[in-house]
Amino acid sequence: MKKRIVLALGGNALQKNGEATAEAQKKVAIEVGEVVAKLASKYEIIVAHGNGPQVGNILIHEEQASTDKAPAMPLETAVAMSQGQIGYWLTQAINNAFAKNGKKAKVATVISQVVVDKNDPAFKNPTKPIGQFYNEKQAKALAKVTGWTVKEDAGRGWRRVVASPKPIDIVEKRTILELVKDGIIVIAAGGGGIPVTRTKVLKRLKGVDAVIDKDYAAEKLAEEVKANIFVSVTAVPNVYIKYGTPNQAALHNITVKELEHYRKYNQFKAGSMLPKVEATIKFAKKGGIGIITDIEHLSEALQGKAGTIVKK
Amino acid sequence: MKKRIVLALGGNALQKNGEATAEAQKKVAIEVGEVVAKLASKYEIIVAHGNGPQVGNILIHEEQASTDKAPAMPLETAVAMSQGQIGYWLTQAINNAFAKNGKKAKVATVISQVVVDKNDPAFKNPTKPIGQFYNEKQAKALAKVTGWTVKEDAGRGWRRVVASPKPIDIVEKRTILELVKDGIIVIAAGGGGIPVTRTKVLKRLKGVDAVIDKDYAAEKLAEEVKANIFVSVTAVPNVYIKYGTPNQAALHNITVKELEHYRKYNQFKAGSMLPKVEATIKFAKKGGIGIITDIEHLSEALQGKAGTIVKK
Repeated sequence: MKKRIVLALGGNALQKNGEATAEAQKKVAIEVGEVVAKLASKYEIIVAHGNGPQVGNILIHEEQASTDKAPAMPLETAVAMSQGQIGYWLTQAINNAFAKNGKKAKVATVISQVVVDKNDPAFKNPTKPIGQFYNEKQAKALAKVTGWTVKEDAGRGWRRVVASPKPIDIVEKRTILELVKDGIIVIAAGGGGIPVTRTKVLKRLKGVDAVIDKDYAAEKLAEEVKANIFVSVTAVPNVYIKYGTPNQAALHNITVKELEHYRKYNQFKAGSMLPKVEATIKFAKKGGIGIITDIEHLSEALQGKAGTIVKK
Repeated sequence: MKKRIVLALGGNALQKNGEATAEAQKKVAIEVGEVVAKLASKYEIIVAHGNGPQVGNILIHEEQASTDKAPAMPLETAVAMSQGQIGYWLTQAINNAFAKNGKKAKVATVISQVVVDKNDPAFKNPTKPIGQFYNEKQAKALAKVTGWTVKEDAGRGWRRVVASPKPIDIVEKRTILELVKDGIIVIAAGGGGIPVTRTKVLKRLKGVDAVIDKDYAAEKLAEEVKANIFVSVTAVPNVYIKYGTPNQAALHNITVKELEHYRKYNQFKAGSMLPKVEATIKFAKKGGIGIITDIEHLSEALQGKAGTIVKK
């Protein structure tokens, strides 16, 4: 039996050196495709991915060129658009990596909705800046018209901020599971998923303008499809303590308890390594293997020879 | 055994009275979702859909607000974005239609690439206008920079024109087939599919800027998944001869031969009813049942009581 893995790829990773053209991002997707194709003989694979810079650019275009005839799409629909975009690039890259070896890939991108709680405290305090920059006056005027929350962003101007609620359930989990069981590589939960709420009684889904952390969403999916391994694929080969200081030290094999200890002492940056560490801890606590590493060390890490490997 | 049907929905149908907001289009998607949910007890269903106005609006936004930091996506990637967008709306609508009856939907949108021949004569003579309007000077300047073909569009200004090649193969056909066999409603081949070429020897896929007719692509998919019925869902309940004249007459049950006769006498408008008639003829010739009708008459048409029903 093949082991089942969920890979959570950073959306920033697709834009090397900030190069945001489709051509440049497809080149990075090709590298990912090669690695995925190599792993596919040993593992059932689900690829989740971020979409920060991609959905940011979609929103900038949608908002700047919005007219009555061609109105801007809301954030939740823009997330769906970014899933199509990135999913296509990854699907094609995996197709071509198999074709190179004379093989036919079985791979599919599934548009994915992720349920969040409408009472999640995140909705009371939106913190995630998205889309384009405005000056204070423009931002406040926009906020009045649209109902947006706007905030000053690190001295760079004013932006819309949205909530980043926790993922509760992946709507398409059964479909995704049937696909991996059929031997199909699945790309799912892109950008943390399209955020939706679900009514208690009628189970009605409704899109909400929010952003779900892709590591949390991918981890939730990994739990739901009973994956054996969850990997947060990032820009560095390991998790470090004392990061960026002369005493920086890489973590290799580590228990949940040890990693929680370092987290307690604020060793991991919020919005960066912290969500990866938290997602990995959550997964390892339920008995799975959690890994944090970069794409270059992924194969070795799966053999236990590289990366930060977290176990209960 | 359930019969397998492929529905080809018009992209224009989602924008009732030209209303292009996400909210307005979601409302139309809800109507489609209700019908699909009703049919699901009797049929295995694949929904293909157009994307004309949706990808048009995406391109307008992408092109108007393009910068070095947030560059415009090319047409083929914009098609992928529109598949995510419309697929999400339809998926959610089907989810909610099932939920209304206390049931769980099994439904998935699969991002779909469709192979075209790079030697298709359509590439020599691009005819399909897309994206925004320019004046002649702007259009010709843009053409020089981008390599686009631009043409004057019916007195309304100048636009980019792209090829509309014939679909040869749906890359994701095996995945789509496994899904319907597993009882999952599949949304696929959106917008006629993301157009890709495939090299002969290495089978490498590469996106090309083109637009594939959604009826031809959906019909190709229907053949490939061995569907029993192919339905082109349009704005009118039937196909008509002498359309728009006092002698207009609806076609009901009709043979391929009879329908070919009317086609020969130019009864069907190019870019409108003609591709639907041609796709239906192609499908019926291979032994399937081809239907052309509107969403309101779909259920009745499947019972043989409405619509234009084409058989060999």
